[in-house]
Amino acid sequence: MGIALAPASRVAVLRERTPIVTTLCSHSSLQIFHGARAEGLGTLGVAVGKPPRFYEAFPLARPDRFLAVPKIADLGRHARTLRKEGAVVVPTGSFVEYMGPEAFNDLDVPVFGNRKVLGWESDREKERDWLEMAGVPMPRKFADLSSVDGPVIIKYYGAKGGKGFFLAKSPKELGDFRPTGPYVIQEYVVGTRYYAHFFYSPLSEEGYRVRHGSIELLGMDRRDEANIDELYKLGAQEGLRQAGIRPTFVVTGNVPVILRESLLPQVFDIAARIVDTSVDLFGGMVGPFCVEGIVTEDLQFKVFEISTRIVAGTNLFPSGSSYSDLVAPQLSTGRRIALELKRARTEDRLVEVLS
Amino acid sequence: MGIALAPASRVAVLRERTPIVTTLCSHSSLQIFHGARAEGLGTLGVAVGKPPRFYEAFPLARPDRFLAVPKIADLGRHARTLRKEGAVVVPTGSFVEYMGPEAFNDLDVPVFGNRKVLGWESDREKERDWLEMAGVPMPRKFADLSSVDGPVIIKYYGAKGGKGFFLAKSPKELGDFRPTGPYVIQEYVVGTRYYAHFFYSPLSEEGYRVRHGSIELLGMDRRDEANIDELYKLGAQEGLRQAGIRPTFVVTGNVPVILRESLLPQVFDIAARIVDTSVDLFGGMVGPFCVEGIVTEDLQFKVFEISTRIVAGTNLFPSGSSYSDLVAPQLSTGRRIALELKRARTEDRLVEVLS
Amino acid sequence: MGIALAPASRVAVLRERTPIVTTLCSHSSLQIFHGARAEGLGTLGVAVGKPPRFYEAFPLARPDRFLAVPKIADLGRHARTLRKEGAVVVPTGSFVEYMGPEAFNDLDVPVFGNRKVLGWESDREKERDWLEMAGVPMPRKFADLSSVDGPVIIKYYGAKGGKGFFLAKSPKELGDFRPTGPYVIQEYVVGTRYYAHFFYSPLSEEGYRVRHGSIELLGMDRRDEANIDELYKLGAQEGLRQAGIRPTFVVTGNVPVILRESLLPQVFDIAARIVDTSVDLFGGMVGPFCVEGIVTEDLQFKVFEISTRIVAGTNLFPSGSSYSDLVAPQLSTGRRIALELKRARTEDRLVEVLS
Repeated sequence: MGIALAPASRVAVLRERTPIVTTLCSHSSLQIFHGARAEGLGTLGVAVGKPPRFYEAFPLARPDRFLAVPKIADLGRHARTLRKEGAVVVPTGSFVEYMGPEAFNDLDVPVFGNRKVLGWESDREKERDWLEMAGVPMPRKFADLSSVDGPVIIKYYGAKGGKGFFLAKSPKELGDFRPTGPYVIQEYVVGTRYYAHFFYSPLSEEGYRVRHGSIELLGMDRRDEANIDELYKLGAQEGLRQAGIRPTFVVTGNVPVILRESLLPQVFDIAARIVDTSVDLFGGMVGPFCVEGIVTEDLQFKVFEISTRIVAGTNLFPSGSSYSDLVAPQLSTGRRIALELKRARTEDRLVEVLS
Repeated sequence: MGIALAPASRVAVLRERTPIVTTLCSHSSLQIFHGARAEGLGTLGVAVGKPPRFYEAFPLARPDRFLAVPKIADLGRHARTLRKEGAVVVPTGSFVEYMGPEAFNDLDVPVFGNRKVLGWESDREKERDWLEMAGVPMPRKFADLSSVDGPVIIKYYGAKGGKGFFLAKSPKELGDFRPTGPYVIQEYVVGTRYYAHFFYSPLSEEGYRVRHGSIELLGMDRRDEANIDELYKLGAQEGLRQAGIRPTFVVTGNVPVILRESLLPQVFDIAARIVDTSVDLFGGMVGPFCVEGIVTEDLQFKVFEISTRIVAGTNLFPSGSSYSDLVAPQLSTGRRIALELKRARTEDRLVEVLS
Repeated sequence: MGIALAPASRVAVLRERTPIVTTLCSHSSLQIFHGARAEGLGTLGVAVGKPPRFYEAFPLARPDRFLAVPKIADLGRHARTLRKEGAVVVPTGSFVEYMGPEAFNDLDVPVFGNRKVLGWESDREKERDWLEMAGVPMPRKFADLSSVDGPVIIKYYGAKGGKGFFLAKSPKELGDFRPTGPYVIQEYVVGTRYYAHFFYSPLSEEGYRVRHGSIELLGMDRRDEANIDELYKLGAQEGLRQAGIRPTFVVTGNVPVILRESLLPQVFDIAARIVDTSVDLFGGMVGPFCVEGIVTEDLQFKVFEISTRIVAGTNLFPSGSSYSDLVAPQLSTGRRIALELKRARTEDRLVEVLS
């Protein structure tokens, strides 16, 4: 028997009722609903204000119904009804960001995965501790500007959407940096970025084994970022700075990508360490997560961040990716969530995948 | 009952005969034929000179037969035969460009979609009027060089394939600009590009509703452009100019991409406005179209162009895209055209989708 | 009857036994095993040391069993057993590179395709002769530094993984070049890169006909290269050089891409010439190969390299690509190899596809 994340009382109703996969109408909701429908589960879209109309265009991904709330904070008031109906909340980046990690943590509705993980993701320091404990290769961190000895990226605390970043290709350029608040200085690793979509199942022993259960690789993408990704067309950063144009790193979309096969051992090893350490730290990061790294010219995969829930890059693959096609046909991350939920019900192990 | 685009006489034969989907052997013909075959329609490839041999390699996309003409202008002479056989011409960028909008307009064969739209697309001023009337966010237009206050792209009238473009990151660089003909000055919006493949059906009420009928989102791509897309590898624009290398924007291919889900409401709203306005202006843009925009770091989608017919980026998805997989399985834009044609026949509404 | 590559004795056992598709556990092995399994063939993974664990995560691509050898050079000792069991070795870039072309050539186990081709691929001069004989457009080659008249890329002999390359956008920049060994100077063609995945079957007459048999186009990708592909984010090359950061071209992954349809005639013509010439030179390049080129702003496809065996970019498409979907459903290059093997068995023509 595995680790119980939820009290049995919270999930009791789900033994009798078909789960209703519930998420906020944003981020990766189309895919989550699409996967749940494919597996015969119910679906509920939580909308702040009027539900977005775009679902009309996607008959296979439209939720069965909507719950419109004036503010996301009001969701808590519906907890009792949601619980009774069999709602299972699937957290996404938007969901947690809009609601706030505390309110989300207090939401008295079963959540898919371990809600404790979100506190670890949203705190840069705790995330770094976790990854260091896991022994995962990361870009270096510099204690202060004077210790910088190569290219760096400087990130302000709480900078949303990559707007407050400062890039310097050498210590010399740090002269241009005028801090406006607390910041961290990271080595800027030069290489190509990969966002690997994993799924950790504490129930399954069929995939790549970790200490409790197994992990699967379901897809990979690269984020599109504005304006950095097309900035070069206007000329060199140096000249742009003089013209008052500064690089920003706001995610606007995603492109599919695969990794050199000989790097898969590295990436699986990293993902497994992260999962195993999460079990020790807070009972385990259950369900989808993303390992985000840069591959250097020496073919080292350096992790610059992890996401501890479904990432929007998985939206590329509602009917399978170059990786998930080797696991099972038509397997999206959204569908994988639904499958895990069904299995946990059948095997009476809901407390291990819900919290 | 909707808006009749074609006189009933032009399409009468199609009530008795299976339509023969007909297009020029270029641009997106493989996909158009593939979709038509999948729906059991006939296919005819119009070739200028000898038909290209590459169809031999694609058994599922080969047209049933070819019509070889010495020049595309000669197609008109075959109009009577084509009409009798049940030909329905699917316009593509190449088709209209090679034939000329006037000759295409006069072609006495049923055309899928509203042939009047092509006059609006090929005239930059009319297209801008249309989009402004629709209230769509666009890059700014500058009346003259002295009013420029940021990065701009200067396009000569009728510059084919993005060769005659001039980029300046600031007013200062305009000193290098030596006009060689009439031109327009547009704000150069810095961000990431998305080409959203829509389909407007005046028959359907199942998708995202517009005033008459509905729209669907079937895919998304980003165009590959030579030499701009890999130019940066050689160094900064500034230095390249001195070495005699100038940026060009010639489309050479496409890569798949998806957009942040929270931007979908913006893009659907834009597409719906464009369609609704087209109904007022010229009876409606029926069938596939593409909304081409740049997403800024403030997550605004700014439309820099629209294509009023199938775009080559749809060739990425002969068996479905990240978006069309949420509409129906295996749904390409080519297949969607065939489905619309079949539905119009069944419901006796051919005059609404043909012209 | 076609050209026999293998003596009948080497392949005799395969008339009685189901072939066991055998390859090194790297590069494109997941796809090769996946395709072989889908076609009901056996699979064997050759591992140097312990087999990589990542296969656990991919139940549809896991080989039936592993053969672990201390060094790849030891594989030869297992030749007799492998032959008896019905092994057919599928060469990959890694396989040949690790084993060395000579040892691979001497391996007394049936190899899919013509093992003679590998000698032509691994020698830059011979490859260039072959392509020139085929009349294929290529970047220019400069005899010495003083004859350079535009952008060039300078490659050291035997530079592995694109690390020892030097880029210069003009003759002026050659002043910075300090040769450290023998090198070749190539024109740096500015444009967008495409890697077209072809398959040459000497058995089939159903695809695009060449002199003996036919070719198919099964996919297309663009390689991701570190650090060149994201280097621009740090600023212009010029400034980076001063900061001690030099461009490298190490392949780290792949992105899917398609080519403008009007360029397909050029690319098919090039591929056919390369195949026809290979028949004259060494009996034919059988099976998968890749034509790697740059499309210029004048829409010319210039071949900068060919790979004469399966490339890792095909890993993008285990369930079909934008191109193979027009050939047959669910057709990967790995599966195409298995199909060819089965057909050769059925038609008793194994000597034409094995060597």
